[in-house]
Amino acid sequence: MAINKLTITLFLLISLAVFHCLAFRVEVQEFEPPQQEGQEGPGGGGSGEGWDEETTKNPYHFGQWSFKNFFQSKDGFVKMLPKFTKRSSTLFRGIENYRFLTQEMEPNTFLVPHHLDADYVFVVLQGKGVIGFVTDKANDSFQITKGDVVKVPSSVTHFYANTNDTVPLRLAKIAVPSNIPGHFQVFFPARSQFHQSYFTAFSKDVLTASFNIPEELLGRLIGPQQQMGQGIIRRISPDQIKELTEHATSSSNKHKDKKDKHKDKGSSTFGSPFNLLAQDAIYSNDFGRYREANPKRFSQLRDLGIAVGWVNMTQGSLFLPQYNSETTFVTFVENGCARYEMASPYTFQGDQQQPWFGPGQEEEVEEEMSGQVHKIVTRVCKGEVFILPAGHPFAVLSQDKNYVAVGFGIHASNNTRTFLAGQDNMLSNLDTVATRLSFGVGGKMAEKLFTSQNYSHFAPTTPSHQFPEKPKPSFQSIFNLAGF
Amino acid sequence: MAINKLTITLFLLISLAVFHCLAFRVEVQEFEPPQQEGQEGPGGGGSGEGWDEETTKNPYHFGQWSFKNFFQSKDGFVKMLPKFTKRSSTLFRGIENYRFLTQEMEPNTFLVPHHLDADYVFVVLQGKGVIGFVTDKANDSFQITKGDVVKVPSSVTHFYANTNDTVPLRLAKIAVPSNIPGHFQVFFPARSQFHQSYFTAFSKDVLTASFNIPEELLGRLIGPQQQMGQGIIRRISPDQIKELTEHATSSSNKHKDKKDKHKDKGSSTFGSPFNLLAQDAIYSNDFGRYREANPKRFSQLRDLGIAVGWVNMTQGSLFLPQYNSETTFVTFVENGCARYEMASPYTFQGDQQQPWFGPGQEEEVEEEMSGQVHKIVTRVCKGEVFILPAGHPFAVLSQDKNYVAVGFGIHASNNTRTFLAGQDNMLSNLDTVATRLSFGVGGKMAEKLFTSQNYSHFAPTTPSHQFPEKPKPSFQSIFNLAGF
Amino acid sequence: MAINKLTITLFLLISLAVFHCLAFRVEVQEFEPPQQEGQEGPGGGGSGEGWDEETTKNPYHFGQWSFKNFFQSKDGFVKMLPKFTKRSSTLFRGIENYRFLTQEMEPNTFLVPHHLDADYVFVVLQGKGVIGFVTDKANDSFQITKGDVVKVPSSVTHFYANTNDTVPLRLAKIAVPSNIPGHFQVFFPARSQFHQSYFTAFSKDVLTASFNIPEELLGRLIGPQQQMGQGIIRRISPDQIKELTEHATSSSNKHKDKKDKHKDKGSSTFGSPFNLLAQDAIYSNDFGRYREANPKRFSQLRDLGIAVGWVNMTQGSLFLPQYNSETTFVTFVENGCARYEMASPYTFQGDQQQPWFGPGQEEEVEEEMSGQVHKIVTRVCKGEVFILPAGHPFAVLSQDKNYVAVGFGIHASNNTRTFLAGQDNMLSNLDTVATRLSFGVGGKMAEKLFTSQNYSHFAPTTPSHQFPEKPKPSFQSIFNLAGF
Repeated sequence: MAINKLTITLFLLISLAVFHCLAFRVEVQEFEPPQQEGQEGPGGGGSGEGWDEETTKNPYHFGQWSFKNFFQSKDGFVKMLPKFTKRSSTLFRGIENYRFLTQEMEPNTFLVPHHLDADYVFVVLQGKGVIGFVTDKANDSFQITKGDVVKVPSSVTHFYANTNDTVPLRLAKIAVPSNIPGHFQVFFPARSQFHQSYFTAFSKDVLTASFNIPEELLGRLIGPQQQMGQGIIRRISPDQIKELTEHATSSSNKHKDKKDKHKDKGSSTFGSPFNLLAQDAIYSNDFGRYREANPKRFSQLRDLGIAVGWVNMTQGSLFLPQYNSETTFVTFVENGCARYEMASPYTFQGDQQQPWFGPGQEEEVEEEMSGQVHKIVTRVCKGEVFILPAGHPFAVLSQDKNYVAVGFGIHASNNTRTFLAGQDNMLSNLDTVATRLSFGVGGKMAEKLFTSQNYSHFAPTTPSHQFPEKPKPSFQSIFNLAGF
Repeated sequence: MAINKLTITLFLLISLAVFHCLAFRVEVQEFEPPQQEGQEGPGGGGSGEGWDEETTKNPYHFGQWSFKNFFQSKDGFVKMLPKFTKRSSTLFRGIENYRFLTQEMEPNTFLVPHHLDADYVFVVLQGKGVIGFVTDKANDSFQITKGDVVKVPSSVTHFYANTNDTVPLRLAKIAVPSNIPGHFQVFFPARSQFHQSYFTAFSKDVLTASFNIPEELLGRLIGPQQQMGQGIIRRISPDQIKELTEHATSSSNKHKDKKDKHKDKGSSTFGSPFNLLAQDAIYSNDFGRYREANPKRFSQLRDLGIAVGWVNMTQGSLFLPQYNSETTFVTFVENGCARYEMASPYTFQGDQQQPWFGPGQEEEVEEEMSGQVHKIVTRVCKGEVFILPAGHPFAVLSQDKNYVAVGFGIHASNNTRTFLAGQDNMLSNLDTVATRLSFGVGGKMAEKLFTSQNYSHFAPTTPSHQFPEKPKPSFQSIFNLAGF
Repeated sequence: MAINKLTITLFLLISLAVFHCLAFRVEVQEFEPPQQEGQEGPGGGGSGEGWDEETTKNPYHFGQWSFKNFFQSKDGFVKMLPKFTKRSSTLFRGIENYRFLTQEMEPNTFLVPHHLDADYVFVVLQGKGVIGFVTDKANDSFQITKGDVVKVPSSVTHFYANTNDTVPLRLAKIAVPSNIPGHFQVFFPARSQFHQSYFTAFSKDVLTASFNIPEELLGRLIGPQQQMGQGIIRRISPDQIKELTEHATSSSNKHKDKKDKHKDKGSSTFGSPFNLLAQDAIYSNDFGRYREANPKRFSQLRDLGIAVGWVNMTQGSLFLPQYNSETTFVTFVENGCARYEMASPYTFQGDQQQPWFGPGQEEEVEEEMSGQVHKIVTRVCKGEVFILPAGHPFAVLSQDKNYVAVGFGIHASNNTRTFLAGQDNMLSNLDTVATRLSFGVGGKMAEKLFTSQNYSHFAPTTPSHQFPEKPKPSFQSIFNLAGF
């Protein structure tokens, strides 16, 4: 038996070792590998341009193939990323309770009423529509349009309509489950093709007594024949759209009927949408614009501590090297492609190959300060997701015209953003003596290094940035207009 | 060795699969199974009436046999449910740090001073007594009676007395551990039959120096012979009861000596009890009453985010289908039996059969939205517990006269309750067009379905509800008095 | 296959059992073992005096050998304790996200600018120096000296200098990671001998565009030759010290240039240091002094809920038996040795022998109230750490002159301290009747037991306390000056 024990121990250790070997390898390299710089991989799913995928395999990048269908029909879909801790149970433990989703509804469709056991925040990426909230006290509908940010509180029943004739209604969402960290479900009062009504769970006598209706009518409640063939997203007529739209509060008068909210609804009352694109940009110049709705400025986002960012960049622009102090951003590319470059001192050992350890199992984290910086370089394209953890320096280099991305910031209540280059960069504020001690350069060289960039936040780069061997003209210095 | 690795992998996977097969099966069924509706099982422990237990095996129900004795003697007991995550490490991860207890003391008994490394809230189910708090600054005793709710802060030394001659003093408690999530222990300054004094841990020289007493007296402090035979709950004399009662603040003058609290005790000062039954009911009519103390209205409950509910229902009444937005209620039946019906989209795979995975191990959660609703039907009787997770629609059907239950609400700071039937039901607030789109019924039929029930919150049902084959007279419609 | 399954199950169970047997054994003993009382072990690392180490093996004590080097050179070091949950995944789950570190810098040295993905609080144990904070908005340097407490917010770039000619600058720190519970890393803008610059992660084209500098200058930024040989702690000249010191705000005028903080830095702005030793002591008499900075009194400590305590005791003094209500203290001995005695009802089963279960795996906790009190007796010396969990009664007996220790309190927002002996002891406030019922002694004896000690908080003991067989003269009673 002693031998058996030894054997099994050995087996377990060997299995572990083997699986560690199979785990993802993050690209770790010393500086000066110019010949590899162009090797960003495609975002996968055919969105890239055929570069070698292997080198960009990293835990922070989720291609389109990572999404799982939550629901899909010809009229639209809801897709969700797996729990982040399925990718790395250690690296993403701090954001374990957050789930990222996208939703798309074809023109003239309706998503039936439902509630989740999760709070969520969404931003409208494209299109126009209506969201309707229904409670036992009231019924509030709001018109929503591109850039609108809405918080949907946990367990509030709500429905959506795409009220536009031609354009899909597309949303990005971040959900914060209420019952089970990282997991939530959807509850439907009415039956549809693939989804049961939650009234199904009640017995006939409870239902007849509850609704005070004869038994014959129960079928109308929980399983009417005529709805059987329809999915949760379904076509609606122009008249129905007109009626739904008329009832909805538009952005211009959105604060009207707030008064008939009953007092005991208290602070969980849902607020009206606010439009992120109507806000002043936090950073803006000819090369890019960044807008953000954060908990400090929008009380709706306060209890969840969520921020929503929206960045626009022109082709070949650079969102200058920076890091967030406390917030991890889940960024979703809405248009174009960008190269994300990020520094991480963490070593990643994926545990997807260790199915029986499950997501609750923490892989070992390298305890020593190795001193090495892992270079995370990824091309991220429309429909893909990139995670920017707190404290990690990163830069974004847009590679197509009109690069657009949204980001959901987690733990965003007290975040600050520190730029490492550009007119407002942190290093230019370092004492002369500290600069010399740290970088080994005197005041003159330090000035050259840290104050040559006159742009703030966004800066131009050469179109040939993918071939850095080619010498770049320093034409930027002739511009002297910082766009802050 | 490659073969060995393969083999071991295979073995692990097979073991996993087998144990998944052994796991609990929740009753999942399509609607229209009237012949099965009567199959609620007994609450176990002999409290039921002999129905088939198997069909109600579900993770949300804890029979009396689930409780473990924390302490038991002829003079009383303290019992505790296992950590909820022992039943399901996934379903109950959100309430992992909460423990449910009951305590019973015979007439004329005393529970010796002790403290826990946990905050807790209790409600008096029955009887009259005294709770005494002792700190290094002061000494506050309060008379407690049925319906009183008290918060006992972590590590405050306190004792109980049942001051009544005939009636047991019975409490239900929810504890929130301070040191180890989901675990706490009890600390006693004085020794009793089965419990050591914590002074036992100090060496003789520390004790003599601390108390400045000769060594001979140490025995009186930590192990006096005359106390050896007594448990932590022990008989007391009428004189002792009189003295304890006289020192205690009664409800009528409970705010008196609050002024001699020293200022540096700050916000952790324990408050006086408040009586839940003396509050106005939130919902009340001829068929039932629901009272609730929640964090919004009672500042004592604020830091723990705990609510306490108390429901009374007449025989054959129905607490109408509803759900809580953010709060999970741990309900404890104080009198009678009720049938709980609940809708859950979650699949449950119990891990009690997987002892080596332990409570820290998360079982896999079904990621896809299956669209299926699991029907949880359980008969819950006196002394049993049922968990009502946030967002899950449920109804309660009382089956005995004077059904009484208390509930501890977890994450209760911003909860709202949504009724799905009755005069205030959420569905009656749905737009006409949304109703048609969702339920496939027009305005007239919708009105019939959603507004026929004139009662709110509680409604009558027929006495024959357990035999739903028998046609039920719709006599309810002749009543027109909503009891809100 | 059935046999295989059985076999593997058996193997797993056996392995588990064996490893449980290998696990740490905590000393559990009934009272009255005077011959063992002197057996406290050395703190390890040669700091003790040769007592038997085995009996003090307990999870709460971390010797010097427990620290891992985060960085070390001839000019200083940063050392860190492993995650507490590596010692016991159950006992320390509540403090899993906290890490303890010490830092030492030789005279006239500089620790290069860096940031962590963690908030931290430090206290200066010895020496004088400067801490400089650099953001993209400003640059604030503060002079620090023994007793200063400083909060460094997550991701703020900062540097240190030891500005003294002769005395090392020594700090104790507690860190609260932002990204991964219990783990953090360090990020350096500039390269040093063993540590890469985070700019290393950016490609050449991004760097040249970001800084708007020619490629030739990049080397100066991320890897200048002249810095290669230097560690992160490096020698600096008197002139450099003078310059750094001049820029730094000293304690006397530390609130000056606070006004040029930009408004959008908001509440995460770092505050100035405050000196703990300049505060009035909370407890003080001839035998000891205890000072504490807690979240209630220092707003900087509020968001982390951290308290910092500092105790001084004369040789042979006793910090009287007491417990904290909600706070777990991580204490670090700065000078001398003390015997810690602590009562714990918890059983400890170390899981260091179970490497593949990892720190995420919870060992089983004994669920029943065993009634036993585990006696934790440990000699803790300079450079060692002892954990005092919430609710656990403990006493500290100084064994060398000038015993000094600091403590970081976790979950300290609402803590109260309850003394079990001394003039303010909790037991002396117990009702006469409750005292008789609990301790079986009448009023006269209770008075003798609980009010003979006229000192509060700190009391003298005999020099022979290590040999408790020798009768101790009760000379304390002749003093009548309580030092409160």
